[in-house]
Amino acid sequence: MEEKIIEKLIGAFMFLPGVGYKTAQRYAYKVLLGDEKDVKNLASSIIEAKDKVRFCSVCGGFATSDVCDKCRTRDSSIICVVEEPKDIDYIERAKSFDCVYHVLHGTISPLNNRGPDDIRIKELLERLNEKGFSEVIIATNPDVEGEATAMYIARLLKPIGIKLTRLAQGVSMGSDLEYTDEVTLSKALESRREI
Amino acid sequence: MEEKIIEKLIGAFMFLPGVGYKTAQRYAYKVLLGDEKDVKNLASSIIEAKDKVRFCSVCGGFATSDVCDKCRTRDSSIICVVEEPKDIDYIERAKSFDCVYHVLHGTISPLNNRGPDDIRIKELLERLNEKGFSEVIIATNPDVEGEATAMYIARLLKPIGIKLTRLAQGVSMGSDLEYTDEVTLSKALESRREI
Repeated sequence: MEEKIIEKLIGAFMFLPGVGYKTAQRYAYKVLLGDEKDVKNLASSIIEAKDKVRFCSVCGGFATSDVCDKCRTRDSSIICVVEEPKDIDYIERAKSFDCVYHVLHGTISPLNNRGPDDIRIKELLERLNEKGFSEVIIATNPDVEGEATAMYIARLLKPIGIKLTRLAQGVSMGSDLEYTDEVTLSKALESRREI
Repeated sequence: MEEKIIEKLIGAFMFLPGVGYKTAQRYAYKVLLGDEKDVKNLASSIIEAKDKVRFCSVCGGFATSDVCDKCRTRDSSIICVVEEPKDIDYIERAKSFDCVYHVLHGTISPLNNRGPDDIRIKELLERLNEKGFSEVIIATNPDVEGEATAMYIARLLKPIGIKLTRLAQGVSMGSDLEYTDEVTLSKALESRREI
């Protein structure tokens, strides 16, 4: 009986990304031997998050009500377009100005049969038509799909005449030229700045 | 509000061993975006395991009732002494014969102020006195504390006249002599077998 319960717990942990049998087993033993309060807190936090958090009907990010805190409280004329809800958090940590967001929930990826209609581009156009934003920052990932999606959106928005920007591409802070790939270095040279 | 709930979930995941902020964040996003069934299964498995699994009053391993399945169903004259409940599972996967177990719940470790009375050695002696076991396999870890604990138990049990064995020490299957440490190689030479 105890074996079955423990095996079930190990299997349940393997649902988490990057967690194989051995790691799940370590987590399961921590649950069995760990402090009751911490364990119950983990279980209840999982349920609370799953039950209460949904997508914001405006930006598509995480929200606990129909509209998320940022969409409700911020009155910014800058809108930042990202691929996934979690990207909002990464940008929030980095940025020094307030903006609102628009989550695409994916990228255009012909190889995976995902076209422009499968991500939230239509909703972006609607928001831009409804409210006069002054700038759209396209912050999709700097990989093939993210670049393609950024180019597609840029071409679509050009006729509107709105200011379009993209995250700068260049060398990472604290990195080493020796280990910087050629494409990144070439982009960094291309976008060099006067000092 | 959503930020607070997500932060709480990330914090809760950091209770798991080896999980830092970034990993906890990935787990949290998987909970938010993953399949409802899998997520609820994880939470309920955690609660079920924590509520139902306790320590067996005989061997000290995991059990769902006062006595674990193995202690209740196995009638073996071989008893295998391990450090932690989880070690039972590792040995179960490897072994080809049935034995019962005795979990010490730790090792003797003067540096950490843990003496013989702090682990379940007294309980082991009681079990050996109560039932006539034919062999005690000491399967503590092959590290300094595990070795010291094994030596201590061996010296204690010698007068009883019971057969005492220890896991063989030698080269790992599939390994390479080049990468085998000297102590292990020396033990493997010492315990060489005729073929």
